Amino acid sequence: MKKYTKGNDVSYTLGVFPTIELIKNKPNLIEKIIFSTKLDISENVRNEILDFCHKHSVKYEIDDKIINKLSDKDNCYVIGVYRIEKMSLDKNEPHIVLVNPSNMGNLGTIIRTVLGFDFKNIAIINPAVDINNPKVVRASMGALFNINYKYYDSFEQYKSEYPNHPIYTFMLNGDNEIKDIEINGGIYSLVFGNEASGLSADYMDEGKSIVIEHTKNIDSLNLTVAVGVATYEFFNKMRNK
Amino acid sequence: MKKYTKGNDVSYTLGVFPTIELIKNKPNLIEKIIFSTKLDISENVRNEILDFCHKHSVKYEIDDKIINKLSDKDNCYVIGVYRIEKMSLDKNEPHIVLVNPSNMGNLGTIIRTVLGFDFKNIAIINPAVDINNPKVVRASMGALFNINYKYYDSFEQYKSEYPNHPIYTFMLNGDNEIKDIEINGGIYSLVFGNEASGLSADYMDEGKSIVIEHTKNIDSLNLTVAVGVATYEFFNKMRNK
Repeated sequence: MKKYTKGNDVSYTLGVFPTIELIKNKPNLIEKIIFSTKLDISENVRNEILDFCHKHSVKYEIDDKIINKLSDKDNCYVIGVYRIEKMSLDKNEPHIVLVNPSNMGNLGTIIRTVLGFDFKNIAIINPAVDINNPKVVRASMGALFNINYKYYDSFEQYKSEYPNHPIYTFMLNGDNEIKDIEINGGIYSLVFGNEASGLSADYMDEGKSIVIEHTKNIDSLNLTVAVGVATYEFFNKMRNK
Repeated sequence: MKKYTKGNDVSYTLGVFPTIELIKNKPNLIEKIIFSTKLDISENVRNEILDFCHKHSVKYEIDDKIINKLSDKDNCYVIGVYRIEKMSLDKNEPHIVLVNPSNMGNLGTIIRTVLGFDFKNIAIINPAVDINNPKVVRASMGALFNINYKYYDSFEQYKSEYPNHPIYTFMLNGDNEIKDIEINGGIYSLVFGNEASGLSADYMDEGKSIVIEHTKNIDSLNLTVAVGVATYEFFNKMRNK
């Protein structure tokens, strides 16, 4: 067992929350569960995890050394070891496209947020952080196990795979306000740029560009907030259809 | 010069972005500016800071030792030393009320976000993180210098100071959707709970409760995202009045 690095076949859920989500949503991917002797969670939660291990013949062990080795934090009492699977996106669902996301905590929070607004398919354009890094998994609070994701080497590669998804790019100088966008059905792609640099000017020629209006007192919204506002609005468009 | 701790009379802007915002918005609070010998920012930015120091007779010095002592990060090349001022909230403006915020990065991002949606007055209910901690200042990207804030020991204390602000509490089991809220004028308070625990049930009896609808696939939205969506919606209500 070694600390996670990109390219590993397995990754880890560090902590109770993501481990429970792993068990509920992707039980078939679990290799084993590791407990700390300091396990200090409610008996119900511990029993839920143990019951699961017994029912599904999942191996479990108690091993503080491995817990300490795999986790950076002191307060990690349980770890799920899971196989990383190859996934593809659902072509009949709306997509979130993240171009070059560079912050692991942000990516995790974005996964949790878009799942909350009913988006379950995320395309990531390289270069980008690794979605299976335990820091992303933890920040997603396990929401990662409820979505499909796929990496692409370029936006063109993504587009060629889903030519029927109308594209909406979120840009500081976008031409449209969200409220003015009318969607035809539930298939489309919402595209967001990197935390620091946003989407380059080239993206103005891709589909329709959208601006989230804000005051001139700030340069731009934080990426996570922009994704939150955008998916919230499109979630409401879908609900009101 | 010592590392910032709560109760200090002065605090620090670590980095170019917050230092520029400090200079633009609160020049009268600046004690001095400290440069690193590694200063590697554009000549324009450096000249802007130096011009300011000359014009306003602000002391500046080059001192790597102090930079290293005050900053945790390697990439900090300029620090502004500023006096912490006593502030009060504008009673003729809408307020954001944060009950027990506990994460410094979140608080900084929230300040930047609400300023983007034209909210410039933040009440903070103790216990809470310290808004002048350099980590908050940095995460706010200097937006802190564009807002008024004030700490209160209880929500009751806050209310007694602003009895004319209608209260909207954001809760998972809130009674109203944001879209259904009609505001009368621009004076009101949007109230948000702690990152982990939200607002306690008592808050259901305070003003009107609002829920931001999301799917059952997540327990709750991240606090920063919730504040972002809420202030975005109220910003639009104000713009459309």
